[in-house]
This record gives sequence, C-alpha cells and structure tokens, in this order.
Amino acid sequence: MLATKEFNVKKSDFWEWYNSIIYAADLVDNRYNLQGFLVHKPAGAFMIKRITELLEEGLNKTGHEEVLFPIGIPKENFELEKEHVEGFAPELFWITKMGDKDLPRPFALRPTSETAFYQMYSLWIRSHNDLPLKYYQAGTVYRAEKETSPFLRGREFYWIETHCAFQTKKEALKQVKEDQKVFGKVLKTYLGLNYMVFDRPEWDKFAGAEKTIAFDTLLPDGKVLQVGSTHYLGQKFSKPFNIKADNEFVYQTCFGHGVWRVVAAVVAIHGDDKGLKVPSQISKIQVAIVPVGKNDKTQVFKDVKKQLKSFRVQIFDDIDKSFGFKLNQTELLGIPVRVEVGDRELEAGQATIFDRFTGNKKQVSLVSLKKEVANLFKEQEANFKNLKDLPVYQIDSISDLKEGGIARAYFIGTKGTEAEQAAKDLQEKTNGVKVRGTLFGVKETVPEGAKCFMTGKPAKCVVYLAKQY
Amino acid sequence: MLATKEFNVKKSDFWEWYNSIIYAADLVDNRYNLQGFLVHKPAGAFMIKRITELLEEGLNKTGHEEVLFPIGIPKENFELEKEHVEGFAPELFWITKMGDKDLPRPFALRPTSETAFYQMYSLWIRSHNDLPLKYYQAGTVYRAEKETSPFLRGREFYWIETHCAFQTKKEALKQVKEDQKVFGKVLKTYLGLNYMVFDRPEWDKFAGAEKTIAFDTLLPDGKVLQVGSTHYLGQKFSKPFNIKADNEFVYQTCFGHGVWRVVAAVVAIHGDDKGLKVPSQISKIQVAIVPVGKNDKTQVFKDVKKQLKSFRVQIFDDIDKSFGFKLNQTELLGIPVRVEVGDRELEAGQATIFDRFTGNKKQVSLVSLKKEVANLFKEQEANFKNLKDLPVYQIDSISDLKEGGIARAYFIGTKGTEAEQAAKDLQEKTNGVKVRGTLFGVKETVPEGAKCFMTGKPAKCVVYLAKQY
Repeated sequence: MLATKEFNVKKSDFWEWYNSIIYAADLVDNRYNLQGFLVHKPAGAFMIKRITELLEEGLNKTGHEEVLFPIGIPKENFELEKEHVEGFAPELFWITKMGDKDLPRPFALRPTSETAFYQMYSLWIRSHNDLPLKYYQAGTVYRAEKETSPFLRGREFYWIETHCAFQTKKEALKQVKEDQKVFGKVLKTYLGLNYMVFDRPEWDKFAGAEKTIAFDTLLPDGKVLQVGSTHYLGQKFSKPFNIKADNEFVYQTCFGHGVWRVVAAVVAIHGDDKGLKVPSQISKIQVAIVPVGKNDKTQVFKDVKKQLKSFRVQIFDDIDKSFGFKLNQTELLGIPVRVEVGDRELEAGQATIFDRFTGNKKQVSLVSLKKEVANLFKEQEANFKNLKDLPVYQIDSISDLKEGGIARAYFIGTKGTEAEQAAKDLQEKTNGVKVRGTLFGVKETVPEGAKCFMTGKPAKCVVYLAKQY
Repeated sequence: MLATKEFNVKKSDFWEWYNSIIYAADLVDNRYNLQGFLVHKPAGAFMIKRITELLEEGLNKTGHEEVLFPIGIPKENFELEKEHVEGFAPELFWITKMGDKDLPRPFALRPTSETAFYQMYSLWIRSHNDLPLKYYQAGTVYRAEKETSPFLRGREFYWIETHCAFQTKKEALKQVKEDQKVFGKVLKTYLGLNYMVFDRPEWDKFAGAEKTIAFDTLLPDGKVLQVGSTHYLGQKFSKPFNIKADNEFVYQTCFGHGVWRVVAAVVAIHGDDKGLKVPSQISKIQVAIVPVGKNDKTQVFKDVKKQLKSFRVQIFDDIDKSFGFKLNQTELLGIPVRVEVGDRELEAGQATIFDRFTGNKKQVSLVSLKKEVANLFKEQEANFKNLKDLPVYQIDSISDLKEGGIARAYFIGTKGTEAEQAAKDLQEKTNGVKVRGTLFGVKETVPEGAKCFMTGKPAKCVVYLAKQY
C-alpha cells in the first residue's frame, strides 16, 4: 500500500508541492465523501500518534494528567461565557436527531473544550488542596471551516488541549511559561522545527481569554503557521462557571497543541524536491532496507534484518521495480535512514547507509551496522539543535513589506480601537498581512521618537507582521 | 483529587457495589450534563489508554496497521448494506446543522465504521498485491442507547475496530482465529480475565455479517458480558461496496475490541468489598507508598522513592488522614502493590509490601525493595495464568435454569425460524435468558436421541444460555 508513483513536483512551487506530496507519500486520502474530513493512512496516522505521545510525555512530566471528556457539548454550556460563544457559534456542528427523533436538547461537537471542562471543574475544585489542577485531553475537535486544507485547517482537527487551574495569578502565568518548555522540547529537540512566540494583540485573542500567547512557525512560501497557543484565562471562565477554591475564584490557563499543524510544519519545512524528510521519532518506517538484486534470501541479509530489529524497518524488495525506483521511493516517503545492501558489498561485509536529512552516504561494516544506524539517528537529532532563527527584516513603511516572511516594525499599540483599525488597514492594503503581536517574554524597547509605520503617530511597541495560514 | 471517602458497600450487592465503586475510586464522573455521556477521570482514562495500547501492540505484531477515519459517516454509505442500515438506523446520532445553517447532506456519528472504511477499500484495493489489508482504528463510537451504564453500555463507547480484507475465504477465517489470540493475550495474560468464545446464532449476528464470534465473560451476578466480537463478513460488504482484487470480490473480517467493557470486567471480576484490584499493566498508580508518621522527609525515605522510580508511584502522606485510612484508600483505588514504611522499620532497613490481589503482606529488606516489588508484579501476572474455567451447568429443561450463570443445553438449532422462535420463547419465559451460541472452535456432539430442551424435538446442537449485560 506504499506510494508507487514517481514524484516530480518542485518545492519552489510550494503550494502545489505541498498538495502533491501529502498524497504521494500516502499520509492522507481526500476521497472520503464528507467535505472537510480526511482519512489518515498508516504513515500519517503514525505521525499524529507519535507527535501526540511526545507532547503527552512532556505534559505528564510536568504534572499534568490525562482525562477523557465527551465529544458533545450542550448548547447552554457555550452560553455561559459571552465572548466565547460569539467566537465559536458560527463554527459549530449540531447534533439534532437521534434515530428519527428530534433531540429536545441539541448538542454540538466540541470546537474546543473549555465549556465542557469548566462545569466539571466547578464540581471538582473545592479548596486549595485541589489545586493546582492540571488536566489534558488528546483528540479531535470540530469546526465548520469554510475552506479546509490537509493538516492546516480541517473540520476534524487533531490536537491536545490542557486546562489548568491555580490559586493565584502568578502561578497561572508561570504555567504559560512551562507550556513553552513542553512544546519547545518536542518541536525543537525531536522535530527540528523553530518558531517565534508572540503575545497576540488584544483583537486577535482566543475567544474568552485575557491573553493569548501563540507559536508561529514559518513555511517556505513566507506565510506563518500557528502551531500552538497558550491562553491565560484569568478569572474570565471561573466566574461564569463558578469555579472557586476556598471561596476565591481560581485563575486558569489553557493550551492548544496543534498536532495536525505540527505534521504540516514537518512536511513543509523539512521536505524537498524528492519528497518528505521525517524525523526518526515520528516516522512509521525508520530504516528502509533496499537490497540490490535478490540477496534478501541470503543468510547475511537475514543477519542485517536481525541486527536492525529494534528499529521500525521496512524492506523494499519489490522485484517488479528497479533499484533506482526503490531508492526514490524511500526518499519520497521521507524515511530518515536507508541501508543499501548489494551482493558484492554483502560478500565484503559492508553496507551503505544514507542520511535522508543531509543526503550523505557512508560505507559501514556490517558488524557495526546497528550502532552506525543508531548513531545516525543521534546525529540527525543533534543537527536539529542548530536551529536557525526565523528570518526577520525591519520595515519603516508599508512599502518596505516583501511578498513573504516576517517583518518587524514600530506600531501604535496592541489594544484599543485605533491600533485595531491600523491593523485592519494593514491587512486590507496588503491582502492579508497581519500583526502577529509582540515578542513574548522579551522586552523590546521602542527608540526615542520612533513612529508607528501605519499611522505616523508615536510608536508604543515593536510588532511582527506576516501573512498566515 | 483522589477518593477521600470511606467505602462501605458489599460486593454481594453486586449492582449497587459496581455503581458505587466506579465513582468512589474516581474512574468516572456522571455529572456531565449530556445524557449517556461520561467524563473519565485520570485513573479511568489511564485504564482505557493502557488497555488500548496493549491490544494495539498485539495488532501491530500480527501485521495490522493503524489508520484514522472521520467521525462522521454520510447517510448514503449506510444505505449500501441493507441489513446493516436496518440494524443501526435507530441508534444513529445525526449532525444536521453547521452554525445556523441546515446541512444539505446530514451525516451520522459513526456507530461502527464498516461503511466508512469500505468505500475507501474499494479505492485502495486493486490487485492481490494489495492484500491482505489489515487496518485498525482505536477510538470512540456513538450509539443512541436508551439505557446506559458506565463501561457497559454508553452513547459514547471506547473500543478498537479492525477491518481486514483477503483474497480467499480461508485466509479470512484464519484471521478470525488470529483475532482470538490477540484478544486472549491481553485479557488472560495481562488482565487475568477468562471468557468463553461463542459462535452466535444466526439471529444474533452483527448486522451484515455472515458469522459472528463473540467473547463472553461472566460477571459476579451471573450475567455474561460480551467484551469483544469478531465478524466474518464474507463478501457481504465487498459486493455492495465493490471491493475487488483482480476482479474478484474480497473476503472480509472485522473485529470490535470493547475497551470500555474490558474496564467493566476488570472492575467487576477482580474487585472486592474493599474496592478495586487493578492489574499493574493498566493501573495509573502501580505502587502506593504509605509512610508511617512524617518519615517522608528522611534520607532513607528518599532512597525508597528513588529505588521505585521506574514504577508509577504515588505517596500517600496526607497528614490530616490516619494511617489506617490511607491503607484503606490504596485498597479502594485498587493499587496492585503497597509499600508501608514505618519509622522503626526504616531504621532497621526494612519495609512491608502488600499484594492487593492476594492480600498477603511481607517484610522485605530496603536494599532489595525494587526487586521485591518487580517480583510481586511478576507473581501477580503468573497467578493470572491459573484462570479457572467459567462455571457451566447442564440443564435438561427450562425449570433447571438457575438465577444466574451459564447453562449448557441441547437445542434445536442456531438458524431457521423454528430455532429463533424457541430462543425468543426462552427469553420471554425467563425474563432474559438468551442463547449465546455454540462453542467456537470446539465440536460438541449431541448424544443419540437427545431432545431440544425447549421444543422437545430432536436436538441438533449444544448451546450455552445466560442473561446478558
């Protein structure tokens, strides 16, 4: 069931490339007969599962516990937090019938689970002994998006959401920082993906949040992709949901890890003209073995397989296909390490190992094959540590904006109607460039006398600008 | 957030006990405001997750691959297989609205996924090279049950479903046997649960199947619980869904592993008057450490914790609670191993370990604590191997039936209207005793001249009878 076609799309045509590679490498199938819903084939399902597991590992280590909430949320729950219901109402899928009967109380597929979790938190939290409460749930959420795109925007979206409650504001704000570490460990260390963390402007917050801190990565076409976001909710939900510890309303945070979007970032950022490059932590096949000729029946070849059995291995031995075709196929699928074993090499006790990330090849002794492959995985992860900063360029006026990329500019502010209007004007004039926010956790000072690049009035902050997915 | 109340219900009042223990041990909360939907707290969510993982391990080892299908199934898919749609139509939840707009094509929450998978199989399967195809999906299914009961019957039900396609009938029937091994490994070896495997009568098959083989375990009140079922579908779906390999319709099987019901069986079968007994493989807390007094600050105590860090450990050191209360609490939660460390014991380099399954206590040296705990887990699993057969008693007439338990009887048959009518009569006269089927994989011969216990006519088979959950 693996990809069997040639792949000939250049990554320089990014959008066409992206929309070809995800099917060519058999991650998903878009022929399911329900608009905006996708079927995930084994390689795609595996990436989702492993990214989820890696994030969960980080959450478990930092004292979070997993819970499972119903997929349905009754209408009345949404209505408790006004901004929240206004934000999500147009996107809800409603279940209105059971068999052939109308349901007296329709319920929605969860678009996010604040209003499911927090009614229970009001029952579970009684005193400071119950705090901090740090729960998470991994799964799917449902939003009636008009336009959908695999791994980027879908009616069925894979993610993890955490919901934490604390006694003090200080602890809640500390959680926002911890969230960054958990996310960073997976994205940077295991997956080699860099991102910037922004404090979103007031007008671009999560519906119902006091503050939204978001993780933006940069795709090759110069648009940014939000891969996760942490929200400081303050007491905005604890008051309507009546969540009190010792008679004080709790302070809350929630965090959405966009598992689906992490897959998109892995595909888009690592891939090249030949296909995917999948980090070994999340690749369903870690090692491709490509025998030259029919040596897969020999004893030596069996030893090779046996040596590598602690990895996830697949042998590419389809006799109907050429050696070259099979090499291409392993590259299209993005398998991080390939072992090529020719008849003559086998006799000489050698094999060739290929690194999909660097393209380097190396002859190694069969005796130490296992160690060499393990080392190559380590090297690949070590290279992920040399993450380059996302490229940012400074602008002084709207005419300095380039077609893609992240721009830095002095701006009038991140709240209030004047700033919001300036951001809207920018978006209209530029066909979609948005104010992503100010850098989170870094104080950037505005030089004496600097002017807002949009309004010409005195600037109050340094913001970053980009088009988004 | 752990249970803090006393638990005083006797298991002899099984139904009351079951419906108390699942809340007292904090597995689920039933106060979510959507009928038939439950919230799973960390201990319950963990059991679901680990049972799922153990089953997946078995599936992966036998060549199955995980896929992820949409939660929604369009109406037209159901209508392709007539028996299937008739079986499931009354149980479907329908999504009919998106925001405030009516959907032109409503879709249902999946009650099971045959009709989602098989339309894709007709695209994926082209030739014998694509076979066997063995995919599975772990998650939830949705059925509008009228009466629901935690882990037994719910509108949101956790399970795994496998969908396999083969070139020949023989291979498909072989798969049915492999399914038993995968299921048996988890249920018997890891969880210590026995069950019987029945070939269900014609009238009690899965909607659309040629043959249904089901796994029934026995709960303490004498009713059986179906924890899983394998279906041989033959070509009943491949024909309407047009799934052909080299122009021949494929043969199919599917298998539902009732993860939720396995939790129910663990709770119901292992538990006792004091609370749960959770096998170490699926227990969120594997080792409870209960310090006597405040010794948790001493160096020796820190060493104890460090020694046990490869297990999932929780320390019960709430100073507001008595030592006795804490011991009871660990037993209520079903933590398989408890380590008690008193001040004097610590000084003498000793601790006491307690086996929740046997109730045995043992003093061990602190130096070898890790090994002793590991051994105790091994012993517990070794004891699971001494599984007793489910008790079965022979009956000759309906008046021999006892209140609970599994009866064995000679019967007129497992298909045809006469047999079905006899089964219906039995059910009516006995307030619910059902013909579970004939033993699967074992040929039981009917003695010369034996009569059907219901009709008095010549018996054709040996069947088993029980009330069911």
